[in-house]
Amino acid sequence: MLTGLHIVIMGGDARQIEVIRKLSELGAKISLVGYEQLDHSFTGAVKEKIDEINWQEIDAIILPVAGTSLDGEIDTIFSNEHIRIDENKISKTPPHCTIYSGITNTYLTKITQKAGRKLELIFDRNDVAIYNSIPTVEGIIMLVIQNTDFTIHGSKTVVLGFGRNGMTISRVFHGLGAKLKVGARNAEHIARIEEMGLDSFHLNDLEEFVKDADIVINTIPHLVVTANVISKMPHHTLIIDIASKPGGTDFRYAKKRGIKAILTPSLPGIVAPKTAGQILANVLVELLHDDLLKRKGNVK
Amino acid sequence: MLTGLHIVIMGGDARQIEVIRKLSELGAKISLVGYEQLDHSFTGAVKEKIDEINWQEIDAIILPVAGTSLDGEIDTIFSNEHIRIDENKISKTPPHCTIYSGITNTYLTKITQKAGRKLELIFDRNDVAIYNSIPTVEGIIMLVIQNTDFTIHGSKTVVLGFGRNGMTISRVFHGLGAKLKVGARNAEHIARIEEMGLDSFHLNDLEEFVKDADIVINTIPHLVVTANVISKMPHHTLIIDIASKPGGTDFRYAKKRGIKAILTPSLPGIVAPKTAGQILANVLVELLHDDLLKRKGNVK
Amino acid sequence: MLTGLHIVIMGGDARQIEVIRKLSELGAKISLVGYEQLDHSFTGAVKEKIDEINWQEIDAIILPVAGTSLDGEIDTIFSNEHIRIDENKISKTPPHCTIYSGITNTYLTKITQKAGRKLELIFDRNDVAIYNSIPTVEGIIMLVIQNTDFTIHGSKTVVLGFGRNGMTISRVFHGLGAKLKVGARNAEHIARIEEMGLDSFHLNDLEEFVKDADIVINTIPHLVVTANVISKMPHHTLIIDIASKPGGTDFRYAKKRGIKAILTPSLPGIVAPKTAGQILANVLVELLHDDLLKRKGNVK
Amino acid sequence: MLTGLHIVIMGGDARQIEVIRKLSELGAKISLVGYEQLDHSFTGAVKEKIDEINWQEIDAIILPVAGTSLDGEIDTIFSNEHIRIDENKISKTPPHCTIYSGITNTYLTKITQKAGRKLELIFDRNDVAIYNSIPTVEGIIMLVIQNTDFTIHGSKTVVLGFGRNGMTISRVFHGLGAKLKVGARNAEHIARIEEMGLDSFHLNDLEEFVKDADIVINTIPHLVVTANVISKMPHHTLIIDIASKPGGTDFRYAKKRGIKAILTPSLPGIVAPKTAGQILANVLVELLHDDLLKRKGNVK
Ligand SMILES: NC(=O)c1ccc[n+]([C@@H]2O[C@H](COP(=O)([O-])OP(=O)(O)OC[C@H]3O[C@@H](n4cnc5c(N)ncnc54)[C@H](OP(=O)(O)O)[C@@H]3O)[C@@H](O)[C@H]2O)c1
Ligand SMILES: NC(=O)c1ccc[n+]([C@@H]2O[C@H](COP(=O)([O-])OP(=O)(O)OC[C@H]3O[C@@H](n4cnc5c(N)ncnc54)[C@H](OP(=O)(O)O)[C@@H]3O)[C@@H](O)[C@H]2O)c1
Ligand SMILES: NC(=O)c1ccc[n+]([C@@H]2O[C@H](COP(=O)([O-])OP(=O)(O)OC[C@H]3O[C@@H](n4cnc5c(N)ncnc54)[C@H](OP(=O)(O)O)[C@@H]3O)[C@@H](O)[C@H]2O)c1
Ligand SMILES: NC(=O)c1ccc[n+]([C@@H]2O[C@H](COP(=O)([O-])OP(=O)(O)OC[C@H]3O[C@@H](n4cnc5c(N)ncnc54)[C@H](OP(=O)(O)O)[C@@H]3O)[C@@H](O)[C@H]2O)c1
Repeated sequence: MLTGLHIVIMGGDARQIEVIRKLSELGAKISLVGYEQLDHSFTGAVKEKIDEINWQEIDAIILPVAGTSLDGEIDTIFSNEHIRIDENKISKTPPHCTIYSGITNTYLTKITQKAGRKLELIFDRNDVAIYNSIPTVEGIIMLVIQNTDFTIHGSKTVVLGFGRNGMTISRVFHGLGAKLKVGARNAEHIARIEEMGLDSFHLNDLEEFVKDADIVINTIPHLVVTANVISKMPHHTLIIDIASKPGGTDFRYAKKRGIKAILTPSLPGIVAPKTAGQILANVLVELLHDDLLKRKGNVK
Repeated sequence: MLTGLHIVIMGGDARQIEVIRKLSELGAKISLVGYEQLDHSFTGAVKEKIDEINWQEIDAIILPVAGTSLDGEIDTIFSNEHIRIDENKISKTPPHCTIYSGITNTYLTKITQKAGRKLELIFDRNDVAIYNSIPTVEGIIMLVIQNTDFTIHGSKTVVLGFGRNGMTISRVFHGLGAKLKVGARNAEHIARIEEMGLDSFHLNDLEEFVKDADIVINTIPHLVVTANVISKMPHHTLIIDIASKPGGTDFRYAKKRGIKAILTPSLPGIVAPKTAGQILANVLVELLHDDLLKRKGNVK
Repeated sequence: MLTGLHIVIMGGDARQIEVIRKLSELGAKISLVGYEQLDHSFTGAVKEKIDEINWQEIDAIILPVAGTSLDGEIDTIFSNEHIRIDENKISKTPPHCTIYSGITNTYLTKITQKAGRKLELIFDRNDVAIYNSIPTVEGIIMLVIQNTDFTIHGSKTVVLGFGRNGMTISRVFHGLGAKLKVGARNAEHIARIEEMGLDSFHLNDLEEFVKDADIVINTIPHLVVTANVISKMPHHTLIIDIASKPGGTDFRYAKKRGIKAILTPSLPGIVAPKTAGQILANVLVELLHDDLLKRKGNVK
Repeated sequence: MLTGLHIVIMGGDARQIEVIRKLSELGAKISLVGYEQLDHSFTGAVKEKIDEINWQEIDAIILPVAGTSLDGEIDTIFSNEHIRIDENKISKTPPHCTIYSGITNTYLTKITQKAGRKLELIFDRNDVAIYNSIPTVEGIIMLVIQNTDFTIHGSKTVVLGFGRNGMTISRVFHGLGAKLKVGARNAEHIARIEEMGLDSFHLNDLEEFVKDADIVINTIPHLVVTANVISKMPHHTLIIDIASKPGGTDFRYAKKRGIKAILTPSLPGIVAPKTAGQILANVLVELLHDDLLKRKGNVK
């Protein structure tokens, strides 16, 4: 239970609903900032204006997964108001108060540091990255089906990178019957790929392995799908690149050569906002429970 | 090789392109009826008007997968002309000439019988139904992803029927991490479901098993998802029904209760026309080779 | 519940214990013939000599899975006595009395026919064959591990036949990471093999496909692994043949060429007698319930 | 190619044969010490007595996977002679000479350090641990089949630890149809277990999860299967513990309670010496190639 915690949830999208639902179920007191247009109501949750918040009694602030803009603005899809967070507000909270965000930027890092408050980045966690790989791969599947006239089953598919997303994508596409080759550079990854019954190759040999690829899925956040590599692909190859902007593909060259290449946006919130929200909610509850509740106890 | 065969291909959609490509590669002489607007040209294939065909030298007639209308009209997406097949035309062909269609109707069955020509129905074959289950399941996946806000992974999914499509759907959804229950009525199916590591239930107990279902996929071409069954489902359940029209769901009741239920059109030609065409092409080649070429030999 | 049924269980091995346990749990009255040395006692089950049985009140006779010898002898591992069944004894039972056996022979078929009693063969059922394929494949795995110095994972494995056992073996060996090729002769099987993401070949091409095989597993009860085929295999190939005697392998030639070939005995009762017994018990209960109880009702 | 390298292979078991075969194929010059009784001969490989070795020209020394005894003795199954390695011999090699062993002990670490030579431990590598997890899991399967009277399929199986071996074991037992629960303590492992479609639990709750376990497989090299945990298991539970000696099980208590618990020896060399040897050979070749050949070049 989270009884006794007072939490501010500021801005966000459909995913935040699941967070509110869960925290409400567990008995937290919740102040919702930027939620005027939310229909649904939750036990223990009250819609408030940012100026009405009594920061002295706040134990945690939950920001949207995207954090803030570079000048502290916070996005919300449930209100037309402008919401801003700054050092001043944070400083008023008790010392154990923790700020939760998906990612950070120089602004957010600076104001929390100056205020001396803990900033917890949800998307830095391996477990969250792995859980999010699940909606991500379903988004990739949808994109591939929509953008090809052949089935995934039986299609020659190259996956690049075998990190938290690469392993999930490989496992799932293999299960769908794709003829898979997974490219990695590190010996441990190669071993695990083979153990899972998949075919591996070293990234050094990438040019060789795209020669008859129907689908190439990149997860590596560095330019690996270069013009050189693209020039070896057949014309019908579809490139899906999920790596964070600007991706790992030479999109300009792909376009020039007439090869369809898609840099995906962040997929979990799009294809499965409810699941993506539950992932956040579960981790937040764990963090609030294991870390914050203990520290709050100590502080007093 | 199919050298020496003269084949008429009448009407059809994108799938027929793969058929033409394959027969052309194998050396058949091809007359294309209803293809004026087709850009691509294939060795050995000539666009002709139906009245130009010299029926006496035709070994095979390939109709669209949907066959003919009840008065003999043939659909084509590559022409605006009206094309019609009748007993008269068929009768002019040599006795060994075979008519290939996906499915039949009273008209098509009657004219081929009267003319004494063999009518081969591609979609009656188990192998074709199994191959087609592959693009079908990919279409179902796409529909489910598009129509839910949660992931397939982890969602409670009920599959009804364990025939040619039910087995494929079950295998693939299990691989995607769905929490699967497969309903069947026959002991052999139940045994195979269990052997594959899936959970089975008897269709008699269906009402019990939909109580917490997130997704229900029906393959049974009989009314099994009755009003009674639907009334037991949670509100967010998504029903996908692939059974041939009118499906196996009480769609009227589902609508009344606000439960989303989709009767899918034929998915292979929509989600993966190239693969669907290759499936047809492969089977046609086998049939032309094993059956027709032999009979033609005998006849002479 | 099976209350009200009086059942004679005659002879058998460890598997029969599970049958007795289940029937006892369900309230049947049981007479055990050939079980003097069985330690365990079960509610409602009484050890009796065959001459003490009052056949007039017997509803069902359960024989061992192997049935009888050609002169009516029944094997038991729980007694040193000789037990024999004959037409005379069976004739004394009421008309609805049913005889259950795994398999039959000319003797057993004749005496039941003459007595006009129903003989139900458990091993003829598809569901039983599929359930039994599970302990069978585990036995095959054990034999392969014991008889090779390499792992199943990564080894080139050829499975022959895609019936009730072939499908299970293929699925499981694929899961273990074997590089699998499955040989079949029928188009529906080939389609299913491909759909499951495995590689298929037509049995006509068998000689080609064994050329680099590490392991060959045959399920076809006809001579398919001929001297010709064996002569194409590398020396280290291991042949496991589960087909019923005399198997589908030219064992004499394999021996001559120094290739290890094993004709397996019936594996379920050996590797997993408890599971094998439960399979029998479950089916027997279903049969006794659905069929016998109804007929008994009708008869009276 | 390894042409130009002179390598001493000292002692070992069947696995070393694969190492010799591979190095020989790649053109290395090989001195075999402790191989008098080896029948087979390999190009470029010469059997020598340890005193005949000209250490000044040796580029690499390959010890058995077990390394040396605490006084420098080296085991071999191909000779009755005693072989010993010491600082003196190693010191005579050129500075780039590298010693390869599976594991080390105080003696081996000391003599290589004193001599200032690089000691490379093959079994410390993640890739080797993952490759070796493959024969290990096949050994576990064999042990489970031999020590139970039920099938792995359908049996309630608990795997403890989700490291390099735990992941492989979980994947494979799931594929075999076991009803799996995987216990781990770290959030990333729990996430991956769930992503793979398996059920996870936190090790803190272990006592709860063994209550109906048929099979418990431990990979954690710490006492986790305590007397308390064992006291919660049913009598028929089989415990397989692969963790390095003394394992993670209270074997004394298990025995007292009559629960079968097996501390496995190192399985790869036993169940699949050829594969285990190839794993070693592949890694050695990579190391000799990427590291040694380069350093040798630099040194000169
Ligand atoms: N669009 C979406 O919906 C979405 C969803 C999730 C993630 N993402 C993005 O996808 C990317 C991958 O995420 P992840 O969680 O899978 O990350 P990850 O676990 O760090 O995996 C990254 C992989 O890339 C490899 N790699 C990194 N730098 C490399 C280089 N220079 N050359 C070759 N390989 C390199 C890594 O291999 P080594 O171990 O050898 O370094 C690893 O296999 C990130 O950019 C992430 O932001 C996007
Ligand atoms: N929309 C699409 O894209 C698409 C694609 C492919 C197929 N389809 C349609 O999907 C349906 C299934 O195709 P299929 O190839 O899988 O057929 P199938 O192999 O014949 O399987 C049908 C299944 O339904 C069961 N069934 C039939 N009648 C039943 C009844 N009265 N009660 C309970 N179970 C019953 C059968 O079980 P028993 O063995 O016990 O009879 C079998 O498991 C067909 O209508 C087909 O036209 C649609
Ligand atoms: N040792 C054991 O523990 C054990 C356990 C279980 C079963 N068995 C034995 O294993 C064998 C297979 O059992 P099952 O239940 O899998 O049988 P099944 O379902 O009938 O399968 C037999 C397979 O063999 C094929 N086949 C039959 N005759 C053929 C021929 N002349 N040429 C090519 N293919 C042929 C069938 O294909 P088509 O459909 O094309 O005919 C089918 O794929 C039986 O002999 C059974 O007694 C032994
Ligand atoms: N008998 C054989 O044939 C054989 C073969 C291979 C390996 N082994 C032995 O098996 C063991 C596992 O090998 P591995 O390669 O899988 O090792 P690994 O990758 O290090 O995995 C060990 C696992 O144990 C967990 N763990 C370690 N200490 C723990 C503790 N105090 N409490 C809870 N969990 C703990 C680790 O989780 P964290 O990440 O949370 O620490 C990890 O999941 C080793 O002892 C190895 O020598 C034996």
